[in-house]
Amino acid sequence: VRNAENRRIVLASRPEGAPRLDNFRLETGSIPIPGPGQVLVRNRFLGVEPAMRGWISAAKGYSEPVPLGGVMRGFAVGEIAASNNPDYQAGETVTGLFGWQEWAAVDPPAILRRVTETDLPVSTALGVLGVNGMTAYVGLLDIGQPKPGETVVVSTAAGAVGSAAGQIAKIKGCRAVGVAGGPAKCHQCLTEFGYDAAIDYKAVADIGAALRQACPDGIDVYFDNVGGPILDAVLEQINLGARIAICGTISATIGEGQLAPRPNRQLLIARAKMQGFLVLDHFGRFPTGLAELAQWIREGRLTYREDIIDGIERAPEGLMRVLAGANMGKQLIRLAD
Amino acid sequence: VRNAENRRIVLASRPEGAPRLDNFRLETGSIPIPGPGQVLVRNRFLGVEPAMRGWISAAKGYSEPVPLGGVMRGFAVGEIAASNNPDYQAGETVTGLFGWQEWAAVDPPAILRRVTETDLPVSTALGVLGVNGMTAYVGLLDIGQPKPGETVVVSTAAGAVGSAAGQIAKIKGCRAVGVAGGPAKCHQCLTEFGYDAAIDYKAVADIGAALRQACPDGIDVYFDNVGGPILDAVLEQINLGARIAICGTISATIGEGQLAPRPNRQLLIARAKMQGFLVLDHFGRFPTGLAELAQWIREGRLTYREDIIDGIERAPEGLMRVLAGANMGKQLIRLAD
Repeated sequence: VRNAENRRIVLASRPEGAPRLDNFRLETGSIPIPGPGQVLVRNRFLGVEPAMRGWISAAKGYSEPVPLGGVMRGFAVGEIAASNNPDYQAGETVTGLFGWQEWAAVDPPAILRRVTETDLPVSTALGVLGVNGMTAYVGLLDIGQPKPGETVVVSTAAGAVGSAAGQIAKIKGCRAVGVAGGPAKCHQCLTEFGYDAAIDYKAVADIGAALRQACPDGIDVYFDNVGGPILDAVLEQINLGARIAICGTISATIGEGQLAPRPNRQLLIARAKMQGFLVLDHFGRFPTGLAELAQWIREGRLTYREDIIDGIERAPEGLMRVLAGANMGKQLIRLAD
Repeated sequence: VRNAENRRIVLASRPEGAPRLDNFRLETGSIPIPGPGQVLVRNRFLGVEPAMRGWISAAKGYSEPVPLGGVMRGFAVGEIAASNNPDYQAGETVTGLFGWQEWAAVDPPAILRRVTETDLPVSTALGVLGVNGMTAYVGLLDIGQPKPGETVVVSTAAGAVGSAAGQIAKIKGCRAVGVAGGPAKCHQCLTEFGYDAAIDYKAVADIGAALRQACPDGIDVYFDNVGGPILDAVLEQINLGARIAICGTISATIGEGQLAPRPNRQLLIARAKMQGFLVLDHFGRFPTGLAELAQWIREGRLTYREDIIDGIERAPEGLMRVLAGANMGKQLIRLAD
């Protein structure tokens, strides 16, 4: 242990509207001492998730709000430095909800899994081999159930979740159409992630017309990370028996109180399904899914992009980048050795 | 054959807005002669469906519009008077899409099934033992998947479909809450169909508050026949993993162009499903479902109400009654002997 300090990011205040840097504060404390049954983890990478906007809001969501003054909730990957638990050994690499801090004394339930893909970068445990990849895997395959030849539309198509969903759609023999913001991300969709078409929603005047052009056979599966007007436009073009997997609603959150045509008539006419899901309800799928995702990476069929910034003090900046859509790939914070 | 005439109702014009009596016309022709492979059916009862509003509209729906001047599409039950098909014998009772006419020469695909529940009234083949009962059966059990102790809300709760859905929910051990229009229908819900609570949506000032009172443990399943503001209110009160079966959208059709909050955020937070369905996609469930429904009727666990008017010339009036919500039970037209 190089020094006896534990730097951490805590929630200083709840955002009114969009989160700001000053909603967070860097604190320094001592390295925690693991209690009975706990392990001490030294974090190597912190993950940044769009869902953090909800975690720091007081509004009802699917998880408890981060308490004021508490360490910011977040996934991390690191090594076990000390263990008071016979199931875990010092030196093992683990990932879980260890929070935005350099050191974490955690109870085993906070540990999502041991990281065993030692041939792949450890940072993948926070993205394509973490909840992002598994969100794509469960949402696309279990909720979306794509069949070969079908058309799959993915929003935030170049993001950590979306890029995996699009590539899995291609692996399953579908036409994959990505919706992303800006030419750089659309270029990434076509050249890195293998989408058949990419729509820059910020550049097109009519998202419905752009979707019709990109999806000449209609839309069978929509992997929806945003909601809002893109969802409205997709609903107008769904095929019989279409499946819409609701993974995120960032656009609806921004446009709080926005009104739209009700989707029930389109769902009825198409006998279609719209279903919200949360990957953490599907832990049972992790062993199979992670093994398959890792194998696809090794075979060169699944690629991923990481956007790494250095230093725990920059973690809030990482969140600002994600919420502004400025990150190019999974936003990660690398901690010093 | 008492006379050589075949009276039929044809579509005279497409409605602009709500259908009117003068969109239909009574015509008299000769009794059709069944062609090769066809059977001649003498209809005894005609059914009236809310979906007919869609069938006579030119707008995109899940079935082809009834052509102008064509016999009105509709389910009927009757006896085979003559058969050119070795699979069907004169004297058998059959039901299917025979149209609003006294006699129909039909190809076997138009025949939904032989009516074999000879201990029950033949008219049930158009309601509780027809597409209405099977719509309730498939929508509630296959889409809604109710578990004992859950709360099931049903709209148009006293209708031909809704009353069956509510009773099946009770048979499955659920709390059943009906939403219906007017005190007479709400009374029917409580006294005839066994709902635990009934909400008169026309009388309550705040449908959300009324639902909260009737559903103290939240809503697990919504069998939705109407859409509109009731659906909006239900979405605010769904439990984790809720299932919304979209069976009809009469309210949305009336309020064409109405805007509402998008449901995707509620579906995500609750990891809930909203799914449209059409019973005709589920023919495979008919043998099992009809046998079970008939058995429940014989055991006195499933009851039904019919609203019978006499004479084919009154069939359009029957549709007006249904669209105005004036019918008390399955609207049927009884044809003369």
